[in-house]
Amino acid sequence: MTAGSAAERASSLVDPPPAGSALRGFASDNCSGVHPEVLAAIAAANFGHQYSYGADANSQRLQAIFQRHFGSAAQAFPVFNGTGANVVALQAMTTRWAAVVCSSVAHVNVDEGGAPESVGGLKLLAVPTDSGKLTPGLFDAALPRRDGVHQASPQVLSLTQSTELGTLYSVDELAALCDRAHRAGMTVHMDGARLCNAAATLDRPLRAITTDVGVDVLCFGGTKNGLLLGEVVVVLNPEAAPGLERARKTSMQLASKMRFISAQFDALLGTDLWLRNARHANAMAQRLATAVAELPGVTVQHEVDANAVFAVLPADAEAALRTRVSFSDWNTAGAAVRWMTSFDTTEDDVDHFVATLGEVLAGG
Amino acid sequence: MTAGSAAERASSLVDPPPAGSALRGFASDNCSGVHPEVLAAIAAANFGHQYSYGADANSQRLQAIFQRHFGSAAQAFPVFNGTGANVVALQAMTTRWAAVVCSSVAHVNVDEGGAPESVGGLKLLAVPTDSGKLTPGLFDAALPRRDGVHQASPQVLSLTQSTELGTLYSVDELAALCDRAHRAGMTVHMDGARLCNAAATLDRPLRAITTDVGVDVLCFGGTKNGLLLGEVVVVLNPEAAPGLERARKTSMQLASKMRFISAQFDALLGTDLWLRNARHANAMAQRLATAVAELPGVTVQHEVDANAVFAVLPADAEAALRTRVSFSDWNTAGAAVRWMTSFDTTEDDVDHFVATLGEVLAGG
Amino acid sequence: MTAGSAAERASSLVDPPPAGSALRGFASDNCSGVHPEVLAAIAAANFGHQYSYGADANSQRLQAIFQRHFGSAAQAFPVFNGTGANVVALQAMTTRWAAVVCSSVAHVNVDEGGAPESVGGLKLLAVPTDSGKLTPGLFDAALPRRDGVHQASPQVLSLTQSTELGTLYSVDELAALCDRAHRAGMTVHMDGARLCNAAATLDRPLRAITTDVGVDVLCFGGTKNGLLLGEVVVVLNPEAAPGLERARKTSMQLASKMRFISAQFDALLGTDLWLRNARHANAMAQRLATAVAELPGVTVQHEVDANAVFAVLPADAEAALRTRVSFSDWNTAGAAVRWMTSFDTTEDDVDHFVATLGEVLAGG
Amino acid sequence: MTAGSAAERASSLVDPPPAGSALRGFASDNCSGVHPEVLAAIAAANFGHQYSYGADANSQRLQAIFQRHFGSAAQAFPVFNGTGANVVALQAMTTRWAAVVCSSVAHVNVDEGGAPESVGGLKLLAVPTDSGKLTPGLFDAALPRRDGVHQASPQVLSLTQSTELGTLYSVDELAALCDRAHRAGMTVHMDGARLCNAAATLDRPLRAITTDVGVDVLCFGGTKNGLLLGEVVVVLNPEAAPGLERARKTSMQLASKMRFISAQFDALLGTDLWLRNARHANAMAQRLATAVAELPGVTVQHEVDANAVFAVLPADAEAALRTRVSFSDWNTAGAAVRWMTSFDTTEDDVDHFVATLGEVLAGG
Repeated sequence: MTAGSAAERASSLVDPPPAGSALRGFASDNCSGVHPEVLAAIAAANFGHQYSYGADANSQRLQAIFQRHFGSAAQAFPVFNGTGANVVALQAMTTRWAAVVCSSVAHVNVDEGGAPESVGGLKLLAVPTDSGKLTPGLFDAALPRRDGVHQASPQVLSLTQSTELGTLYSVDELAALCDRAHRAGMTVHMDGARLCNAAATLDRPLRAITTDVGVDVLCFGGTKNGLLLGEVVVVLNPEAAPGLERARKTSMQLASKMRFISAQFDALLGTDLWLRNARHANAMAQRLATAVAELPGVTVQHEVDANAVFAVLPADAEAALRTRVSFSDWNTAGAAVRWMTSFDTTEDDVDHFVATLGEVLAGG
Repeated sequence: MTAGSAAERASSLVDPPPAGSALRGFASDNCSGVHPEVLAAIAAANFGHQYSYGADANSQRLQAIFQRHFGSAAQAFPVFNGTGANVVALQAMTTRWAAVVCSSVAHVNVDEGGAPESVGGLKLLAVPTDSGKLTPGLFDAALPRRDGVHQASPQVLSLTQSTELGTLYSVDELAALCDRAHRAGMTVHMDGARLCNAAATLDRPLRAITTDVGVDVLCFGGTKNGLLLGEVVVVLNPEAAPGLERARKTSMQLASKMRFISAQFDALLGTDLWLRNARHANAMAQRLATAVAELPGVTVQHEVDANAVFAVLPADAEAALRTRVSFSDWNTAGAAVRWMTSFDTTEDDVDHFVATLGEVLAGG
Repeated sequence: MTAGSAAERASSLVDPPPAGSALRGFASDNCSGVHPEVLAAIAAANFGHQYSYGADANSQRLQAIFQRHFGSAAQAFPVFNGTGANVVALQAMTTRWAAVVCSSVAHVNVDEGGAPESVGGLKLLAVPTDSGKLTPGLFDAALPRRDGVHQASPQVLSLTQSTELGTLYSVDELAALCDRAHRAGMTVHMDGARLCNAAATLDRPLRAITTDVGVDVLCFGGTKNGLLLGEVVVVLNPEAAPGLERARKTSMQLASKMRFISAQFDALLGTDLWLRNARHANAMAQRLATAVAELPGVTVQHEVDANAVFAVLPADAEAALRTRVSFSDWNTAGAAVRWMTSFDTTEDDVDHFVATLGEVLAGG
Repeated sequence: MTAGSAAERASSLVDPPPAGSALRGFASDNCSGVHPEVLAAIAAANFGHQYSYGADANSQRLQAIFQRHFGSAAQAFPVFNGTGANVVALQAMTTRWAAVVCSSVAHVNVDEGGAPESVGGLKLLAVPTDSGKLTPGLFDAALPRRDGVHQASPQVLSLTQSTELGTLYSVDELAALCDRAHRAGMTVHMDGARLCNAAATLDRPLRAITTDVGVDVLCFGGTKNGLLLGEVVVVLNPEAAPGLERARKTSMQLASKMRFISAQFDALLGTDLWLRNARHANAMAQRLATAVAELPGVTVQHEVDANAVFAVLPADAEAALRTRVSFSDWNTAGAAVRWMTSFDTTEDDVDHFVATLGEVLAGG
């Protein structure tokens, strides 16, 4: 395959973007831009010289911010992107011969280009689920039947909250899964690319669904909740990830001008912006799901607990709709489409989309 | 080692940063901030929704900009950071059993936390040099004496321009090295984290020291020349790096909101900002080198061809100076200190530093 | 875990071996010893000096032997063991960002300690099957729904013949699967640790179920069919595995005194020993399966097409039997036990085992 | 490059082997065959069934044998070959971001096809030496000047005894190096592919130059001292290599019919065969070195402390000699040839070789 060929590039997209347009759509929460408060924080951090690689004032202040949200043992390690956060965390939590139990729809399993295997050498024990959620029983069934050298050593349970299907683990469900993993001598990783959306729906502090239920290492997402770019690996249990700082560097996720990532998280978590953004995106998903469920021929799949709506449409309506608004197929089995809302999705965006879908279904 | 321990973090620094201060120093060109034109470009890109992962309008425009500078075959792949750029490029250029010839002071060899080996599985054949520059003779000596399976297969010659010691390859030197590598059946990678500084000094277009001399894949630096963050892997010879796009994703260097990286390069290379910034940094290094060379007991090492000045000071003067201004030891053998200038280094910064050094040397 | 602790070591076993005894059992076909003709061939190769690493006379003669069995394009690369053979082959067939489709009970997926992931960086797309056999439909369902950089690139279909469950693909089934993989732009790897058993049952030449149906790279097993140790990676389509020889060395599977591996394969494939051994083992499995199927409370699972018998017993009978004869639980889901026969299993071994099981079931 | 092409294969050799001949030469100690006592031990182990993967009687007896030689904490892990032994050991001793200090002529650096990097992700800090021997000063100079995340973390010092240049470390030299490494927080790996030759020359028990001087993990060589194939990773300090058993499996170095490797080491170390073989090979090297040193135009390089003789000849004599006897160029810089003796080298072999060289030098 030619590097950067048009075919290759197009294959990762649904449609070519309208040239120069200010596209509004539901393809992903990473199609949105930067929240104005975040951009202002970047500009405010742009003065003078600062030591690089995390010794700047912004990054040092970040520790206290994360400790306020996640407890006094929390250590925050900013990185570039979600795939990087997950693979850095999982490497720091494991040896070279490790296996990681996860849902078959987990981002680490289906959307990271094989990075956990290629970079980390990890074996994923991916468990099929209908809801995107693991259970203690599914976890048990995923483990090798023997505990010997012939099978990769299961060392980590990886959970996503909110899940890739827009569903949520309850506090009790999380606690039960963490307990089960710990009893098996394993630690718990949480992919929290959309953790804020989960906390907003559950109406609980961030630590209630992470530190307090037994999560050992959290990947806290920023990009999909209004940042320019940036995620933070949050070590909640320092014994679980002793080499995190080295894993970050060696995995090429250590930013030199880190102040500009840290400043964004200061804007997000130093105020209630994380919650405002998440609540808004969730509300837009509710508005969307409620409205489309009324339309004839549309079936909404899964609980709509966060900012994702999965739906099944008549095939011709789906095709017609696609010519008018941007959204994605879902990339694992099943015929659904996925509509994501974002911090900047407006009520008008939703209403216009629903109206368009209504027209399409009516043969318009 | 405890993750993120204070000791560990401090170890990567020379001094703790003055709390809240707008530090001015010569520690590294990544201690500077973002050029205002670059920040403005980021803000300008922040409207509406854009497809993610490079299908946005900014990223698509980027191809033409890079082709204007590097020739019509050039393909531009934005990534996050310099280590990432190098390791993505080298992986796309090699098989699993490859060796890469480089200088022993090359960034890939001494400053990337072992990422080329750990992530890419690459063996580096690192050649000691006094000047940071390889020669055809040094290249020949680095190759295994036999061409068999017992030695890792030498597939890439990696050059840095300007070098980590602030020196430059001439156009003819580059052409000779590329020719030698190609004759050996190898391809050429250039670490161009400071390529603009080289072009500024040589007073040649960017393609004259890359495409036209036979470089196959270039890592074009942005972070050290005024960007917030961002580098671009530029494939000049598509046959040399057929899987670049996949290597980028699997190496966790694919930005979702790529528009905000691409917009910065638009500001840098769509105008003459790249050249203005580089010329200024180079001029400040000249001003600094010229002034300190006059001071008693100071020896300037290496040619000062770009934005780095290496010097040897009396030990007590070095210690005293360090309490008053921030700068780095150099991390490979030899007793030198390294002073880096940046796009935002002012004449006052230099003059103040020289005066301080003068005082220190005078026992002040 | 302490290296080499008793607990760790014991965990890979069912029972401790009776000290010094000439144990007879059905635990695995790798519990048997070396066929006398093979041992004689080793002794015969032990004269004078020979060039190492495959340039010896035995290894050079091996090429013609494999070409006689697998066609004139076949290239034979002896290696140490089955896991090594599979991982060397898969690496030579793929890039760094590859995925491999296989059955969920495949040896590469469940019995290689994560080596495909850890050493090769490969992602396995493991498909659940009842019979251990893939079908074109299962293959299709295993592929990522999109062909983009976000998913590891599916490059190889890996089949096992005979399967880990003792079942067989027919010639037509193999041809259909190879065709499907080739149409998808992928190549086909066959784990043939027990290929001879398959050829014996199907009563077809080796090439009829490998080269002629479109297999690209075969791992031909020796250890389980009477060798001391040794497997051969057989490249049937040289374009599919261009770096095999380097992959073997870099994966630490290149024997220096290779003549002693090659001589064993000369004994096996230069005569009809491969077929005699396989037929015998298969016949013993038939004898066993037929006899136990008559016993009350015993259910034989899967077709008994090779040298494996899977059965479900009453739990107390299973426990009682285990105290008297050695055999294995099966290491994937399901309550079955696995009984393997070997080239050296005797009719008396089988009859004694069946009688013992009968006694146990009768409460004896 | 075509897999297994004649050209590729030939490239790893000096000359094609005479067809069918019982070649006698000095190319390598792995060109010799199997000592008769070793072959007898293999045959003796070939009875009945034995549990696989090390639970057989031979492998269990092996532990006591190694503990007798190396102390009661020693744990023996048989593997297939020397490259495998080294890479398994180094992986078990390190994290994913590790560096290993070694001599630039170390087998791990120049003869393992890049396996330490490719399989283990390790960075080798290779130190040039004239004698093949490291010193505390060279060790210090090899370490990164800073202890931070930007450089791969130096975790292991790897020594070879006897060295690849046929020289020896004294007991005191070893103790000093181990002490230096331990003080730096590192552990010590010894490549003992020819450890027996060293012990024979030094006239010390094996533990005096391993356990007692502070070596943490030893790779004990068998193949080059009369075995068919087999090496043993000996963990002398269990805390230094906690995952050895898993590293062996995941690195594809776990033999199923392990009894046939263990039985060979029983023959070697359960008697004085290890010492007889090594003493003989050493004596033949002395005989050879002494005789050729008398010849005009021949310069013997390095101390001849083990079973290797390095020499420089007039170029035309070297070429003429090569047409009459097999031997190797040395594969690192310098114009020397290398002549290896083996357990089965006879006085006649040496005398005939010296006479041939004399004729060649006389223009014959």
